[in-house]
Amino acid sequence: MARLLDPHTGVYVLASSAVGGFEERRGPYGEAFDYCSEDDRFGQESFELAEAEMSRMALEYAIGKAKIGSVPDLLLSGDLQNQCVASSQGPASVGAPFLGLFGACSTMAEGMGVGMLALSGSAALSTVGVVTSSHNAAAERQFRTPLEYGAQRTPTAQWTATAAGAVILGREGGSARIDGFLPGRVVDAGIDDAANMGAAMAPAAADTLLAYFAETGERPEDFDLILTGDLGREGSVLLRTLLGEKLPTLGGVHRDGGCLLYNRDEQDVHAGGSGCGCIASMLGGVLLPAFARGEMRRILAVGTGALMNPASIQQGGTIAGIAHLVRIVEV
Amino acid sequence: MARLLDPHTGVYVLASSAVGGFEERRGPYGEAFDYCSEDDRFGQESFELAEAEMSRMALEYAIGKAKIGSVPDLLLSGDLQNQCVASSQGPASVGAPFLGLFGACSTMAEGMGVGMLALSGSAALSTVGVVTSSHNAAAERQFRTPLEYGAQRTPTAQWTATAAGAVILGREGGSARIDGFLPGRVVDAGIDDAANMGAAMAPAAADTLLAYFAETGERPEDFDLILTGDLGREGSVLLRTLLGEKLPTLGGVHRDGGCLLYNRDEQDVHAGGSGCGCIASMLGGVLLPAFARGEMRRILAVGTGALMNPASIQQGGTIAGIAHLVRIVEV
Repeated sequence: MARLLDPHTGVYVLASSAVGGFEERRGPYGEAFDYCSEDDRFGQESFELAEAEMSRMALEYAIGKAKIGSVPDLLLSGDLQNQCVASSQGPASVGAPFLGLFGACSTMAEGMGVGMLALSGSAALSTVGVVTSSHNAAAERQFRTPLEYGAQRTPTAQWTATAAGAVILGREGGSARIDGFLPGRVVDAGIDDAANMGAAMAPAAADTLLAYFAETGERPEDFDLILTGDLGREGSVLLRTLLGEKLPTLGGVHRDGGCLLYNRDEQDVHAGGSGCGCIASMLGGVLLPAFARGEMRRILAVGTGALMNPASIQQGGTIAGIAHLVRIVEV
Repeated sequence: MARLLDPHTGVYVLASSAVGGFEERRGPYGEAFDYCSEDDRFGQESFELAEAEMSRMALEYAIGKAKIGSVPDLLLSGDLQNQCVASSQGPASVGAPFLGLFGACSTMAEGMGVGMLALSGSAALSTVGVVTSSHNAAAERQFRTPLEYGAQRTPTAQWTATAAGAVILGREGGSARIDGFLPGRVVDAGIDDAANMGAAMAPAAADTLLAYFAETGERPEDFDLILTGDLGREGSVLLRTLLGEKLPTLGGVHRDGGCLLYNRDEQDVHAGGSGCGCIASMLGGVLLPAFARGEMRRILAVGTGALMNPASIQQGGTIAGIAHLVRIVEV
């Protein structure tokens, strides 16, 4: 059974964007963001609404750059808030037909893959927008404890990025296209430490990458970059350990969005960044624009997600992982 | 701009199923379910895990009837639990590549539409499974109060169905096919009463139906049935009021899954059923099998969802609605 899905038609990235918060501005790619909020609030009264506004802004920036003149024909969006309300209250409010997605922190890759299938699947669509987001303060109080409690974090814990990234996909134009999507399977390695998402997600990333290379016969060095979403330092080490013998050249081209987003020596992010906005902002702000400059020609973007909620952990459940892969190539 | 998306290829419903709980067995379509749990627990230790198991069972029943011999090439699934864990812990555990969807109670229609686009969009896919679920007890304690509190409910409140429905889509076979998908827009009519989801969803259903009939030039009487998901009695009356002048013949063919699922006179469900499992089980257990018997030839299934979570309500937010439409026709 083939797992790598290819489109019938060319699916192009017309434009992309990234919006972030204070820590994201301070990070090594701070200048790549279209906008960063100094107080992470984006002018809103709650952090939850701030995330919705941040995500809406990312979509609007991408729409503006793509010069499509209106909203996309279809919007795909997801986030970490319960019932994905950041997406429905934020970007979906622009009025485009809207499909909510949930892949935890892998949602941007899921969205780009579903966007590829949608454009390839119906001639009625001209453009598809994809945007995902996460907000550190909204995630902390929903998944863990309110910031005001000052809870200590363990070294394997990650820092949920306050960030959103968006892409506009279309039938022509742009300098990158999506020509493959390998949807991930749920992989449960029995991890039950909610402060170690990297360990929960690394086996899923390994499963997806092995499936991709087994099916295509390609090798890691065929790519300029293999970007995982947000394994962080812990998960990245685990991934390379899991794949060391099977894909020995992976380390040369593998980077992780959670490790790239912050200056680990200067910013207190423990094992690195995470959240739906992590790979979304790295793709939207940094990597997709690099195709336009001729600095990237062929990459794999592997969004990684940890599938859990506080109740599932409290009831003794384990944390399964999932990893969706999209192949992005120069035009 | 076209909103109705049509596939390039035939997308067929190979098989479908429905699994439910005690109240669903007592309802007028109780015999149509493949299995019902007498204690709503499905042999599990928590209601949350019971939902996951129920959803997995629905998928397995559909796989068995479709005789595809293995898991589908792609699984689309969603539910109402935070971060969709019923889907990731239940049906996704069968090992198929899995994409999580969130459209609140509209998720089955969203999934059938995305499944249509996916099969039409990549020749690498032969089969797509779609399953959605909801569980009354899991939803009550997550969205409202634990059952043990015995909170009183208002007349406009609905009863979250303990139900799951699944379909297997493929390229040939079966007696029904999906030949159109109109993804809904977020419509916020300012409703802030979490005990009146019908009012929050009815304007979205009206928006989607008006868009469909404006674009196609068809009329309601061109269909055997126009099934909304779970507007309940309150929302159904509102929908017909909203559309009375524009689609005066709607009432003759409109039925609502939330009104059909229970015997309102004998079962204490207030305004009717709701939840992702409501339209999913009506389609999977009752309506899609009716195509095989020649009793249905052309229907519109309009999944309806209320986009909110308890925090968004507590913060003073309103409840937006969304409605996704799929057109199902005889083969």
